[in-house]
Amino acid sequence: MKSEEFEVDTAGRFVSNITRDVKAFASEAGGDGILHVFVPHATCGVALMETGSGSEGDLEEMLRRFLPRDDRYRHQHGSMGHGGDHLLPVFVSPALSLPVEGGKVVLGTWQSVVVVDPNRENNTRRVQLRFIGG
Amino acid sequence: MKSEEFEVDTAGRFVSNITRDVKAFASEAGGDGILHVFVPHATCGVALMETGSGSEGDLEEMLRRFLPRDDRYRHQHGSMGHGGDHLLPVFVSPALSLPVEGGKVVLGTWQSVVVVDPNRENNTRRVQLRFIGG
Amino acid sequence: MKSEEFEVDTAGRFVSNITRDVKAFASEAGGDGILHVFVPHATCGVALMETGSGSEGDLEEMLRRFLPRDDRYRHQHGSMGHGGDHLLPVFVSPALSLPVEGGKVVLGTWQSVVVVDPNRENNTRRVQLRFIGG
Repeated sequence: MKSEEFEVDTAGRFVSNITRDVKAFASEAGGDGILHVFVPHATCGVALMETGSGSEGDLEEMLRRFLPRDDRYRHQHGSMGHGGDHLLPVFVSPALSLPVEGGKVVLGTWQSVVVVDPNRENNTRRVQLRFIGG
Repeated sequence: MKSEEFEVDTAGRFVSNITRDVKAFASEAGGDGILHVFVPHATCGVALMETGSGSEGDLEEMLRRFLPRDDRYRHQHGSMGHGGDHLLPVFVSPALSLPVEGGKVVLGTWQSVVVVDPNRENNTRRVQLRFIGG
Repeated sequence: MKSEEFEVDTAGRFVSNITRDVKAFASEAGGDGILHVFVPHATCGVALMETGSGSEGDLEEMLRRFLPRDDRYRHQHGSMGHGGDHLLPVFVSPALSLPVEGGKVVLGTWQSVVVVDPNRENNTRRVQLRFIGG
């Protein structure tokens, strides 16, 4: 199993595009199989979405509605509303499996691989990539 | 890695049941391993749910509440509310891994494999199936 | 493909921590690869989240808001609001793939593997673990 880890600085961004890194890793790994993307964190997730057309801001608005930054949370560490960040990975999983064919990640035209991170208390996120040959 | 692609016409349906196709592919692939289901689109996802007892309509009602079809979205392409369709795959992933044993997809009694598609602007969806032997 | 099934009693709990079982299975399986966690049920899911700091209760509050226990559902079996339980797995998938290295599940410091079960009508849940070598 080939693997790689790199860091992403998510400061000031709900959505960080890591498609380029994922493609480069698949190209090095070569062959056919599954590329597993994983973030070993409890307040962010990995997703596929279109970027560059406004959906990053739409996602932020929706998450603010869905997980309000107020004092409702039992989880009391960190700043106001941080408890909501801890619910995000239940809905946006930190693990994502993508198909690879001939060293290329299979993605639709409008799909980018992104880290979704609503948490402003930790801006350095580790991303782990692994390749399982088919 | 064995693979197959087929199209689903989602016209008029939030939820399209593809269990039969998934089972047929697993049967052809045979053996034990993981069956990876993938839709290369930015406005739909893949899920497991019970069908035929009303949950399809319940999901539509819930998504209308969760992602209202109004003018709130920065993503401005398409019809009113289409920006919300672009947030769906963040929560309903377009990638799903299912276990296969002896050429049979392991599913609970009430689990069906479905494509969830709130987007009425593209009704022809491609579904890709891949089998990774264990 | 090595596999194992065990039962979890989710009575009185939205969130059941199964990390210990998952780690024990990975240790027995050994090697590098992917550990697939699966629940063959239509009203629960599997997730990674921090436990023991209040997020279990926060998740329950949020799900009550997101999937109200009232009479809105077309799915009419079971007690009031049970139709909402049937929407949960669309958002909290019953399938989760985790990386394994040298017989150890790779998890971040605050990540636990949990079964999320809002359904109080079936408290005995089956959890299936499978290991695919890389």
